Amino acid sequence: MSHVYRLIISCPDQVGIVAEVASLIAQHGGTIVEANHHTDSAKGWFFMRHEILASSLKNGVEAFQADFAQLAEQFEMQWQLNDSAKPKKIALFASKESHCLADLLYRWHEQDLPGEIVCVIANHPDLEEMAKWYQVPFHYVPVTPENKPQAFAEAEALVQQYAADVIVLARYMQILPPQMCADFAGRVINIHHSFLPSFVGAKPYHQAYERGVKLIGATCHYVTEVLDAGPIIEQDVIRVSHAHTVEDLKRLGRDVEKTVLARGLRHHLEDRVLIHGNKTVVFSV
Amino acid sequence: MSHVYRLIISCPDQVGIVAEVASLIAQHGGTIVEANHHTDSAKGWFFMRHEILASSLKNGVEAFQADFAQLAEQFEMQWQLNDSAKPKKIALFASKESHCLADLLYRWHEQDLPGEIVCVIANHPDLEEMAKWYQVPFHYVPVTPENKPQAFAEAEALVQQYAADVIVLARYMQILPPQMCADFAGRVINIHHSFLPSFVGAKPYHQAYERGVKLIGATCHYVTEVLDAGPIIEQDVIRVSHAHTVEDLKRLGRDVEKTVLARGLRHHLEDRVLIHGNKTVVFSV
Amino acid sequence: MSHVYRLIISCPDQVGIVAEVASLIAQHGGTIVEANHHTDSAKGWFFMRHEILASSLKNGVEAFQADFAQLAEQFEMQWQLNDSAKPKKIALFASKESHCLADLLYRWHEQDLPGEIVCVIANHPDLEEMAKWYQVPFHYVPVTPENKPQAFAEAEALVQQYAADVIVLARYMQILPPQMCADFAGRVINIHHSFLPSFVGAKPYHQAYERGVKLIGATCHYVTEVLDAGPIIEQDVIRVSHAHTVEDLKRLGRDVEKTVLARGLRHHLEDRVLIHGNKTVVFSV
Amino acid sequence: MSHVYRLIISCPDQVGIVAEVASLIAQHGGTIVEANHHTDSAKGWFFMRHEILASSLKNGVEAFQADFAQLAEQFEMQWQLNDSAKPKKIALFASKESHCLADLLYRWHEQDLPGEIVCVIANHPDLEEMAKWYQVPFHYVPVTPENKPQAFAEAEALVQQYAADVIVLARYMQILPPQMCADFAGRVINIHHSFLPSFVGAKPYHQAYERGVKLIGATCHYVTEVLDAGPIIEQDVIRVSHAHTVEDLKRLGRDVEKTVLARGLRHHLEDRVLIHGNKTVVFSV
Repeated sequence: MSHVYRLIISCPDQVGIVAEVASLIAQHGGTIVEANHHTDSAKGWFFMRHEILASSLKNGVEAFQADFAQLAEQFEMQWQLNDSAKPKKIALFASKESHCLADLLYRWHEQDLPGEIVCVIANHPDLEEMAKWYQVPFHYVPVTPENKPQAFAEAEALVQQYAADVIVLARYMQILPPQMCADFAGRVINIHHSFLPSFVGAKPYHQAYERGVKLIGATCHYVTEVLDAGPIIEQDVIRVSHAHTVEDLKRLGRDVEKTVLARGLRHHLEDRVLIHGNKTVVFSV
Repeated sequence: MSHVYRLIISCPDQVGIVAEVASLIAQHGGTIVEANHHTDSAKGWFFMRHEILASSLKNGVEAFQADFAQLAEQFEMQWQLNDSAKPKKIALFASKESHCLADLLYRWHEQDLPGEIVCVIANHPDLEEMAKWYQVPFHYVPVTPENKPQAFAEAEALVQQYAADVIVLARYMQILPPQMCADFAGRVINIHHSFLPSFVGAKPYHQAYERGVKLIGATCHYVTEVLDAGPIIEQDVIRVSHAHTVEDLKRLGRDVEKTVLARGLRHHLEDRVLIHGNKTVVFSV
Repeated sequence: MSHVYRLIISCPDQVGIVAEVASLIAQHGGTIVEANHHTDSAKGWFFMRHEILASSLKNGVEAFQADFAQLAEQFEMQWQLNDSAKPKKIALFASKESHCLADLLYRWHEQDLPGEIVCVIANHPDLEEMAKWYQVPFHYVPVTPENKPQAFAEAEALVQQYAADVIVLARYMQILPPQMCADFAGRVINIHHSFLPSFVGAKPYHQAYERGVKLIGATCHYVTEVLDAGPIIEQDVIRVSHAHTVEDLKRLGRDVEKTVLARGLRHHLEDRVLIHGNKTVVFSV
Repeated sequence: MSHVYRLIISCPDQVGIVAEVASLIAQHGGTIVEANHHTDSAKGWFFMRHEILASSLKNGVEAFQADFAQLAEQFEMQWQLNDSAKPKKIALFASKESHCLADLLYRWHEQDLPGEIVCVIANHPDLEEMAKWYQVPFHYVPVTPENKPQAFAEAEALVQQYAADVIVLARYMQILPPQMCADFAGRVINIHHSFLPSFVGAKPYHQAYERGVKLIGATCHYVTEVLDAGPIIEQDVIRVSHAHTVEDLKRLGRDVEKTVLARGLRHHLEDRVLIHGNKTVVFSV
């Protein structure tokens, strides 16, 4: 993968944005490797993502950044300029079920995940050996009805300590306190084991079995205060039939869950996801 | 397609059912073209479907039927013995949108639908020309807030007059009265333009757009008194993105709706769907 | 759908193209509704598509076009500026099988196809009634081993007479002569009833059945001199099993064929497909 | 999972087979948990699979087996009666790429694979650590152009020593000698990284990239003497676009490969796959 800067922009829509941005990039000699735009006509909002070859910026990235800041002010842009050479740091939150954790650790180990897993924080000790094999620090932070505030304070302190950029709830099965949701807004990713908004909350496979649906699914979304209601990043489904028990649904669903989480997380790590209100723009390849 | 009898059974599960049924079929010389079983262990219920080559029943179908009736009583079976040479008669209920109606009429015209479309009943006159080209009687039965009881009485009378076996709500957009749901229990098939149980009720594509889902779907189900909550026969989805407007979702969804309805209806027409409680067993090929 | 101009560009890649194009559009007050870029790094080639709101070009489209022509020369661009208000004219070539023809005629009738069907040319008379209902001129041009050159000359004359922009082989089942492929390069679209490059040539469903594949598919591609080997626009598949006969594969395949053809054609009609060598760039939404 | 016996039958088709088999099972008190039939009308061949609850056979499995052997002779059946309590033993053959190996080891570790992995045999030492973590014996058997016969003799000896029932080529990248294919006919499973019969042989992702296909796939099949031409068990595909490089295709393909291999192997381990000629009957749930 080439060394690039990722320029992510969202702002009120108006004529000339693309031209101004493209001209500035060109003035700095920037080679655009990938470019995506989206206009939300209904809301009058504009979204843009560029990958600029790092080596092509003839005066360096700081000079570009300084010039861009002026442009951004003019167009009231929310923006980021991220360096692909500084991959985002990931804190994995887990419980007892290993499939999502194992999948992400494996992908990272194979250099197939464009981020860095810095720690595993789990409310059960079961998955310690797995984390160890991948040489990732494992922290056992049990959560009980009594110790919730302290437990989450401890977890949050660990996240700060590891300077994690993103928290991934890899089937963590605990509800984060509202304050933590607010503190890490847009930086906590969950995998829910249903095709949301169907089957919110507990035991979605049981709910799916009872309803007799012919497809089951999984949803990767940002966590907000409202349970299973945050902006959706990615979803997928798999066909099932009357012949499948709840156990079968769980087994088949695990493959969907881990794939959907890995895809959604990948999008986030590559700065392809722009949140606007309760929805996402995903500039996937 | 060979001329077959379709033997459909559901009953409390016990040892020996398969043997008794298979022995009786064999005694009558019956060639089994297709056979499916399902045991719902949780509910202790057994489901079975056989296709028996008509020409192979050496003493004729009445003799077989008489013998089978005794067996059925012994095992407390709910059962049907349907003749593939007597395809089910279909009454299509439509409104203004033509895609599901056009699709079913076309499939029938191409002898690709194992049933017979006997009439179209619509609450708007728009689709009359289309029905005419396929030489299917078209009845315009307007429904207003004032005339509901009379309108549905008229529609039901037409269904009786045409001796229709199944009513298909091909985007009919009207809610059938509870009595009619009860009278035709298990014989009214609807296509709902969402992946149920998500987005029940009106304007599901608007709901999907607002929620920002990454897949939209359609659900073919039997109609019951409770809106969009009957036993599901078939579902499917299609991928969408932030770039799609509500109009795009509608356009993409139309293809899913008509395909899902055609598949679900086909299963029903071939006696592949067994209803049990609020769920279905679908013995699809 | 808004009235837009579609600016389609492909050229050798170099720094500054995006900026120059965007600046020119901005100078003319152009509102960009949609924009897509692609760089083929391996071949050093650049591809771009813009949709520009027609009403936003303050000096009119001719002025923009004149200015753009200079830019295009400088960057050695192949380019088109197409008007969405002048939909492409489509000549449908058909044989006996109706599913693709019926599907496209229906979509056009429902104003769901962003083009204009101007005629049907068929080597069998069977589908005349269908074309008539949609009020599309039908021309019966039989093709025999003896009359091939004259038959295709007649067909080509009809295409010219109707000023068709694109020829769609809707299960036409005849091989176009090389000269015709050359004359209409990039403007003849075929649907092949297999997942190419598997099962080239005749009877692909029989080939698929014999090979025992677990998925069957269809491929929409541009026609070139080499049979079933032209640039692929769109493909899709459907799951099958040992229980399906060749007739079942044909039946299931028909749904895939018509969907894939409709999607591929739609991309072409909206100027979303850029051909480069034997491959396509498809800027789909 | 309940303790069951799996009765697998294939034989020339004739009237009464189902009845005879079902009667015998009933005479022994056998509870049928799952039953599947298939008749290949074209070839006049019949296939059947039963799962019989072990505890329900009132005279034990040997008595049933003895009685069944007589029936089998009468109908010229090829048959097996397999005990779910004796899971098949699996020898995994690997090379350098880990994704299929890691996936199968993980599933086995999670008790999600209905078989027992007894050893890994690899022609490169790279994956030893991974096998060790799962406590599976790892054997490094290098293969060079010079030592092929000895290397495969050594591998085959290991397979015998571990009494493996099935060999899985988990991206092994070596072609087995014809004698080994014959010795283990129907017991060597390969994953090929294309949607066969497209892109046989080496570098299928490069071939797919060059051809410009819009879907890539993977195929799980039994190995025969003819390269990539054995009976297909399972296939699947994933959508790709012009924006994907060969490296992207490899990355996306890895997920399809491991999923398809795991599904195909699962079918084999549960005795759901019946080979007939160069095709399979797969009685999947």
